[in-house]
Amino acid sequence: MPKIGIVGTGAVGGYYGCMLARSGCDVHFIVRSGFEHIAQEGFEIRSEKDNFFLCPAQVYRSASEIGPCDLVIVGLKATANDQFEALVKPLLHEKTEVLTLQNGMGNAEALAQWVPADRIQAALCFVCINRLKPGVIENYLPGYLSLAPLAEGGGAAADEWVTRFTHAGVKCNRVDSLDNALWHKLCWNIPFNGLAIVGGGITTDKILESEPLKRYAHLLMLEVRAAAAAAGYTIDDTFIEKQFRVTVPMGAYKPSSLIDYLEGRDVEIEAIWGEPLRRGKQLGVNMPYLESLYLQILHWVDSRE
Amino acid sequence: MPKIGIVGTGAVGGYYGCMLARSGCDVHFIVRSGFEHIAQEGFEIRSEKDNFFLCPAQVYRSASEIGPCDLVIVGLKATANDQFEALVKPLLHEKTEVLTLQNGMGNAEALAQWVPADRIQAALCFVCINRLKPGVIENYLPGYLSLAPLAEGGGAAADEWVTRFTHAGVKCNRVDSLDNALWHKLCWNIPFNGLAIVGGGITTDKILESEPLKRYAHLLMLEVRAAAAAAGYTIDDTFIEKQFRVTVPMGAYKPSSLIDYLEGRDVEIEAIWGEPLRRGKQLGVNMPYLESLYLQILHWVDSRE
Repeated sequence: MPKIGIVGTGAVGGYYGCMLARSGCDVHFIVRSGFEHIAQEGFEIRSEKDNFFLCPAQVYRSASEIGPCDLVIVGLKATANDQFEALVKPLLHEKTEVLTLQNGMGNAEALAQWVPADRIQAALCFVCINRLKPGVIENYLPGYLSLAPLAEGGGAAADEWVTRFTHAGVKCNRVDSLDNALWHKLCWNIPFNGLAIVGGGITTDKILESEPLKRYAHLLMLEVRAAAAAAGYTIDDTFIEKQFRVTVPMGAYKPSSLIDYLEGRDVEIEAIWGEPLRRGKQLGVNMPYLESLYLQILHWVDSRE
Repeated sequence: MPKIGIVGTGAVGGYYGCMLARSGCDVHFIVRSGFEHIAQEGFEIRSEKDNFFLCPAQVYRSASEIGPCDLVIVGLKATANDQFEALVKPLLHEKTEVLTLQNGMGNAEALAQWVPADRIQAALCFVCINRLKPGVIENYLPGYLSLAPLAEGGGAAADEWVTRFTHAGVKCNRVDSLDNALWHKLCWNIPFNGLAIVGGGITTDKILESEPLKRYAHLLMLEVRAAAAAAGYTIDDTFIEKQFRVTVPMGAYKPSSLIDYLEGRDVEIEAIWGEPLRRGKQLGVNMPYLESLYLQILHWVDSRE
């Protein structure tokens, strides 16, 4: 049985680690916040139709206590990518396969400093998962993972990850291009996560109620589409319209970046806004609507009290 | 002696009306807020070196009580331009000269619906004037007026206005092009008035302390420069740098739009942001940095509590 290490046992890393453990995998979690509680009580996973406990859970304070794994899942905040050496490197042997579930652009590339690119996969999480308190994680939107290899030729491992997740009850589909999937996902994250912050801390329903903010969101999506097109990927009108439509039933939803902002935690500014802006420029696409938003987010986060 | 009517006796209209009255002009004020107080106590003008009272002041509740004037000064908010018929038209005879001191773009053109263009002047006010309470006005930045005729051929009356203000102790210089002066003034107003609002209600020192907001302000100025260039006017680097330099000694300054925003009054959104954006587009210059700001200001003002 493969040995699996979870780096970044927050909401996302904790949830998928527990799902895999319940399906019989040998999962080892690095836990840095709430360790004592989880070591004693394990994890509790709540969702609409499927609540369960993982107890005892194999938890550790550091990567070196776990040692080399066959599979590693990275659920760290994108703002913690400078900790890969301490948190990921001790988990690697010469065949370790690594999967990042992190938000935004540039994470898989940052991992490639420590892991050969052909052993890296990335999956985008289309879910709403929150950690309610240490060890208690709620998944309140049944969603799915879109998984792709970072490098061409990483396809066999990608298929294995899909099989593993599917067996664990997690919807997971393989897509051909990570970048294509990322640009599509950013069509939602760039406007909604961003305007929630610079709107003064507003939920997504307030964005949808505001004609000017909806217009700005649409202009941001068109700019993301232009950058994606320059990279060779097509985002169609239907997809753009859908971003507004799927947001309606979310109600007074707080995007993850807004929660981070409000709770004083690091906000994944570079992964969600900075890196797409830089990629656009590299592709010859100016993104002034995005740049306006990015500069304001930097200010709001810098001047947070 | 010419009969002068003041439309919009707020801070700006009140201040310049009082300066002209003190110099011996026959000035009649339309006062709609604080009428009783001003009718009894007159005006008090405060500035660093020159305090005075104008008492009694010739005040009226409506334009029709004043009747036709030789000269009319418009100090209305740009958001009240739909009241020109009620407030300006009764003051006109067939030779009345009108001067607008209003903020932003489009005011002189709106006046031209009621007054022949060759009898309209506009002056930009480079000052910080506030109304402290009814009848009490403070000018705490010794500034100046830049005055220009709306139409070619309006030069003689422009020179007369300059002479009249100079005689009244108001620095006033004539410039050739109203639009050139407006684009230059908007280099400051667009970023600083705007970011003060969408920054969540911040003073200009907070904008200068923020590297990302300074960068955004600079990008906005470059866009204003591009639109001005398309209209045939040159804004040079020195002028753009100066906009930041002159803002430093203002300290924790609240731009007029921020005060309007905070006090629940109409904000001159179209005059300061909407009209320049539309003019830029007409000139073939897209202004996405400005559009991003404009849409956000619309939201902040709409959703004010």
